Amino acid sequence: MKLAILFGGASYEHEISIVSAITIKEKLHNFTLEFIFCDQDHRFYKIDDKDMIAKTFASGAHKKMPQLSLDNGAFVQKKMFGSERLEMPVLNLIHGADGEDGTMASLLDFFDIAYIGPRPTASVFSYDKMHTKWFADAIGVKTVAYESMHSSQRGEIKTALPFIIKPARLGSSIGVSVIKEASEIEYALDVAFEFDDNIIIEPFIEGVKEYNLAGYSANGEVNYSIVEEPQKNEFLDFDKKYLDFSRSSSVSEAEISAALVTKLQSTFKTIYTHMFEGALIRCDFFVVDGEVLLNEINPIPGSMANYLFSDFEKVINTLLANLPQQRRPQVNYQYIHSINQAKGK
Amino acid sequence: MKLAILFGGASYEHEISIVSAITIKEKLHNFTLEFIFCDQDHRFYKIDDKDMIAKTFASGAHKKMPQLSLDNGAFVQKKMFGSERLEMPVLNLIHGADGEDGTMASLLDFFDIAYIGPRPTASVFSYDKMHTKWFADAIGVKTVAYESMHSSQRGEIKTALPFIIKPARLGSSIGVSVIKEASEIEYALDVAFEFDDNIIIEPFIEGVKEYNLAGYSANGEVNYSIVEEPQKNEFLDFDKKYLDFSRSSSVSEAEISAALVTKLQSTFKTIYTHMFEGALIRCDFFVVDGEVLLNEINPIPGSMANYLFSDFEKVINTLLANLPQQRRPQVNYQYIHSINQAKGK
Repeated sequence: MKLAILFGGASYEHEISIVSAITIKEKLHNFTLEFIFCDQDHRFYKIDDKDMIAKTFASGAHKKMPQLSLDNGAFVQKKMFGSERLEMPVLNLIHGADGEDGTMASLLDFFDIAYIGPRPTASVFSYDKMHTKWFADAIGVKTVAYESMHSSQRGEIKTALPFIIKPARLGSSIGVSVIKEASEIEYALDVAFEFDDNIIIEPFIEGVKEYNLAGYSANGEVNYSIVEEPQKNEFLDFDKKYLDFSRSSSVSEAEISAALVTKLQSTFKTIYTHMFEGALIRCDFFVVDGEVLLNEINPIPGSMANYLFSDFEKVINTLLANLPQQRRPQVNYQYIHSINQAKGK
Repeated sequence: MKLAILFGGASYEHEISIVSAITIKEKLHNFTLEFIFCDQDHRFYKIDDKDMIAKTFASGAHKKMPQLSLDNGAFVQKKMFGSERLEMPVLNLIHGADGEDGTMASLLDFFDIAYIGPRPTASVFSYDKMHTKWFADAIGVKTVAYESMHSSQRGEIKTALPFIIKPARLGSSIGVSVIKEASEIEYALDVAFEFDDNIIIEPFIEGVKEYNLAGYSANGEVNYSIVEEPQKNEFLDFDKKYLDFSRSSSVSEAEISAALVTKLQSTFKTIYTHMFEGALIRCDFFVVDGEVLLNEINPIPGSMANYLFSDFEKVINTLLANLPQQRRPQVNYQYIHSINQAKGK
């Protein structure tokens, strides 16, 4: 099976995406892989297997590799005579901006290239934490209470201490602060607004239970990973999350009741259905007093959460066989024809 | 001032977009215009001024015109020797799919081409009528009550007769039915599901007052058009709407109280702010018992609602001077460097 891994992007998570791509390479031995790197200037490069090491990108060596451009149906490499088309589906592995905000999904849709990853609409509802709240409210999934603030309306925070301040649109804990004393607020707001004009504020719940569950749909059914209880110290900082993206060994299942597993799965299904088809997503849940709250949707989780599945290659194959189809209307110019006829043209 | 009008698209509103482009050409005499046509196969063509007539497209004559491709910073025309770059901002005038769903916005963002039009996020919240409801709920703007239905869960409708059935994601009244008798329901559902897997059902409010208001923001302030009371017979059918897209003569202001104008403007502002910056949008409101309800957001209104503004060229110039700036993070590879250092590489 042929598959192109698309990674990089002009994003704060650019480096994490490189780590993710290197990690996933080791998990897809039975695939014929191509690697497509999107640099921070939005140029695409074809990276050789042997060059799939972090140094290639950090040193700028990728700039000497063949450039690719987008064409209808495929990424294309121009050659001395003619061109070579990379005719294969794409795994969108660009975390953060470009990948998870819907940009790359729109490009791939427009150029009619099949891909694993969230569609543009699903991206908008998962990329921005405020829009995730709106989405959850609309579909009846509970989340932690929150307030939002725009940089142009910086003011008093109503949430009681302790609380968390987060930029609305970044992952991997970038710009996030846990606030325990009022004296820490102003600096934390400065930091968060450095990354985004919209921030959200949530109460910090001491000792909350956290569970991660990944899944994807095939033939109208949702398939779930095991439930993981992530290790954490207060909240994951960027360095720790960074290492998280290179995970490849499988983890052990959380020791929770079958009833809670069912509850998590059913919440996952509500979130996924008619929105995330075509993607493998990981939902991070909180459980407070037996109630399941959605914390975050990762529509392109680090290294595709491979470590939560026993047969990751089968997962990718199944997803590839179940990608959503686009409807493109046929234009027949009947209105222009009828108007011209009426005008006698 | 240079400006490229981007029109067409693989959309049910493809022909309407052509009409819009032809209409707007007459309204921007003091601009140096280029015309970029996106055909239903997603190829871009540069159309000469003199060929900006409906027949060019209906006859397929556009296929003989110069093809354009997207490059960083501009649309580019390949020439025998080298290439010519269309270095100018774009007015996104593609109605419906491709234009209003965020696809073109993502492409233009990715290739770093400045444009007038809704950004990808704003597109998602205005393109799908269900997401518009979610958005309105979140920002405290009232809408008509509704229920939604997915094609896979076709079932009983709870809304009382008479009601309207609409595909969630199409404009220009395509696939819309007003249902007065139960016997009409099944056929109307068939029609609506022909166009979209998601539909919405709203009560049909007899004799509701309808008002349209357009606007855009500049220097942090929202500028409004006059308020129009659109003519209607029950609801606009496609043929009528079609003609609507070719409007160029100014209309007369609705005869309503100053208080109602203020109410409409303040609702418009709530909808627009921090979401639609960069776009000129038209909001269609209902007024029921003195209460303002949002009916629809048109983020790329027919012929840019030019007929609602007294000085349309000034509007476009002001918008061009106030387009939102993108933030692109600088990647410095500090994490990869630090990890490699730790490994002694």
